Amino acid sequence: MDPTKLFTPGPTAVPRRVQDAMGQPLIHHRTEEFREILRDVTRNLQHVIRTDNPIVVFAASGTGAMEAALVNATKPGDKVLVTACGKFSNRWAEIAAAYGLDTIMVDAKWGQPVEPDQVEEALRKHDGVRAVFTTHTETSTGVLLDAEGIAMIAREYGALIVVDAITSLCAQEVKTDAWGVDVIVGGSQKGFGVPPGLSFLSLSKRALEKIHQKGHPCYYFDLTKALKALENWDTAYTPATQLILAMRVALSMIREEGLENVISRHEKNASAVRDAVLALGLELFASRPCNAATAVLPGKGSAGDIIRTMESHYGVKIAGGQAHLSGKIFRLGHLGFYTETDIHTLISALEGTLIDLGINPAPGKGVEAAMRRFQKARAD
Amino acid sequence: MDPTKLFTPGPTAVPRRVQDAMGQPLIHHRTEEFREILRDVTRNLQHVIRTDNPIVVFAASGTGAMEAALVNATKPGDKVLVTACGKFSNRWAEIAAAYGLDTIMVDAKWGQPVEPDQVEEALRKHDGVRAVFTTHTETSTGVLLDAEGIAMIAREYGALIVVDAITSLCAQEVKTDAWGVDVIVGGSQKGFGVPPGLSFLSLSKRALEKIHQKGHPCYYFDLTKALKALENWDTAYTPATQLILAMRVALSMIREEGLENVISRHEKNASAVRDAVLALGLELFASRPCNAATAVLPGKGSAGDIIRTMESHYGVKIAGGQAHLSGKIFRLGHLGFYTETDIHTLISALEGTLIDLGINPAPGKGVEAAMRRFQKARAD
Repeated sequence: MDPTKLFTPGPTAVPRRVQDAMGQPLIHHRTEEFREILRDVTRNLQHVIRTDNPIVVFAASGTGAMEAALVNATKPGDKVLVTACGKFSNRWAEIAAAYGLDTIMVDAKWGQPVEPDQVEEALRKHDGVRAVFTTHTETSTGVLLDAEGIAMIAREYGALIVVDAITSLCAQEVKTDAWGVDVIVGGSQKGFGVPPGLSFLSLSKRALEKIHQKGHPCYYFDLTKALKALENWDTAYTPATQLILAMRVALSMIREEGLENVISRHEKNASAVRDAVLALGLELFASRPCNAATAVLPGKGSAGDIIRTMESHYGVKIAGGQAHLSGKIFRLGHLGFYTETDIHTLISALEGTLIDLGINPAPGKGVEAAMRRFQKARAD
Repeated sequence: MDPTKLFTPGPTAVPRRVQDAMGQPLIHHRTEEFREILRDVTRNLQHVIRTDNPIVVFAASGTGAMEAALVNATKPGDKVLVTACGKFSNRWAEIAAAYGLDTIMVDAKWGQPVEPDQVEEALRKHDGVRAVFTTHTETSTGVLLDAEGIAMIAREYGALIVVDAITSLCAQEVKTDAWGVDVIVGGSQKGFGVPPGLSFLSLSKRALEKIHQKGHPCYYFDLTKALKALENWDTAYTPATQLILAMRVALSMIREEGLENVISRHEKNASAVRDAVLALGLELFASRPCNAATAVLPGKGSAGDIIRTMESHYGVKIAGGQAHLSGKIFRLGHLGFYTETDIHTLISALEGTLIDLGINPAPGKGVEAAMRRFQKARAD
């Protein structure tokens, strides 16, 4: 039987072309050949992130690049602000706590975004905030934050703005330079459809000036060293070469499709999933849903039963809720190289599952709603 | 034409079976299936390292695991001792400096090992050394250190002993528990013949007790969190799943061949290379050479010319010297899944290169010497 199809908000399904890239013979990383690959990957990442700033790629999961961002952008004792409304936005606060920063939390209930107004209110109250750490799409709840608005406020108050765009890249419009974002963090196993193990960040000139100050102790994630190596399209330590080869292929697939088309495909897929969920009589959890994943309240059903049945009967793996949302919601991932047909697969599995569990009030309605959305998008 | 054959001391050549493992469909990491894989990889790593202690695997290059070892094994202001005799052993001192440790350097000239006697002398002079950081095989010079002897001294003086075994694992006998080593660090792209991007460390009970004390700030490399996740065969953050799949295959190849056989194959390959180098009238750089790589003084030749010619004429990639040894030596890597035939390929390329460059005093002598060594080993 075919392996389970991943519809989790990361790792996401890896296209065959990307997977095959990892099987290429090993290239030594201290060679002209590899330098060209790193340059190519960097330039295409700059295109996706819409920045002219340098991009540092780490052999590490996304959390590693988040830590690198915080460690290099702040000094011990700094006052920072974190927009907290889910597991991953709270991670900024955890990392800040590990480094002994004075952290102002600006909260929203899980399922809702922190709004720019709240950030402004906090910055008005607290002087000398060095950096604002925010999250573009909060994967644990499927919520979209107004990263542009938050960035604008942060800059207005003279704070660096650091954005975790790990699950928003490719799925949402991200305009790093136009929004004035100082540091943006991304990872391989999300919208890029590459296996996990690679993460990266971009750095504005303003952020670059700050990292040369005496800061926290660090070595592997020291951006000064990484940026120096990058001048020669090199890395400070051995890079994850095969994942970088995979990333190159994924990025060329994005260039072929066109970044705008990639984003609008995500938008269509997400809309179709949301329409289907509603047509099936279920409720969306996020007050402002993102295009990466749809968090769903199971209604009369049990989230655990739905997740288990989708995997065991239909070979479709989705995700559950995290922390206090465990058992309360399920999450349908549609981040990455998914086609209309893939979305039909996902919705059919959900619909079948609800029938199996005796909690589908309207058989056929889910797929119908998704199809209508796709047809409408084609007509527009 | 076939791609360049890697004879560098890392990344090393990746066997087809290992490479194919990365092309397997993605497994989600929060599943029973992945937990079983991680358990399997951990147990086989314990076998190679000869330890019963827990092993934490990171998505990071070897340097990341080195930093994790130091950050978790020491506290700010601690006095530590570093055995420094090459680029990679000096890296311990660089990381210690980044964390503001009080570092006692015990040096040897590059090309020579730091000896246990020197370590003992330093420990006798300096009270309260919390940890000794050493390197089993110094890749930059091809030198083998007496890690067992150094570990014994460190324990005698009540210091933790942390060993970088990144290039010695699979190539040398490493007896973590028998030698009383507290932390041992390894990486994927060396003796395991897996692409770069994965590193790991093992932790003794003695080390475990120390890491629960208040230490340096850290998050991604926080072992307390990693060990807690490991209790359930899980990882704190998203692991590099495809590299772990590759590692599983490499480890099963090692089990099939038998660890003793793997090590003795490395010993034979290294001896054959050394005999060939000497038969070709060249000089070994290391006073006590390791089985991972052979550092060679180019005699009348130029190291750069030799490296370039081996690659351009013979498609064989070897490494140069590092730091002040750049241009002064070349390094033949024989770490990983190399057969007798592979070693003949390497030696033939070197011999041909010396002829091409007009500096081969004795054509045929290199391959002959290597062959004699292999035949002698078979007869023994």
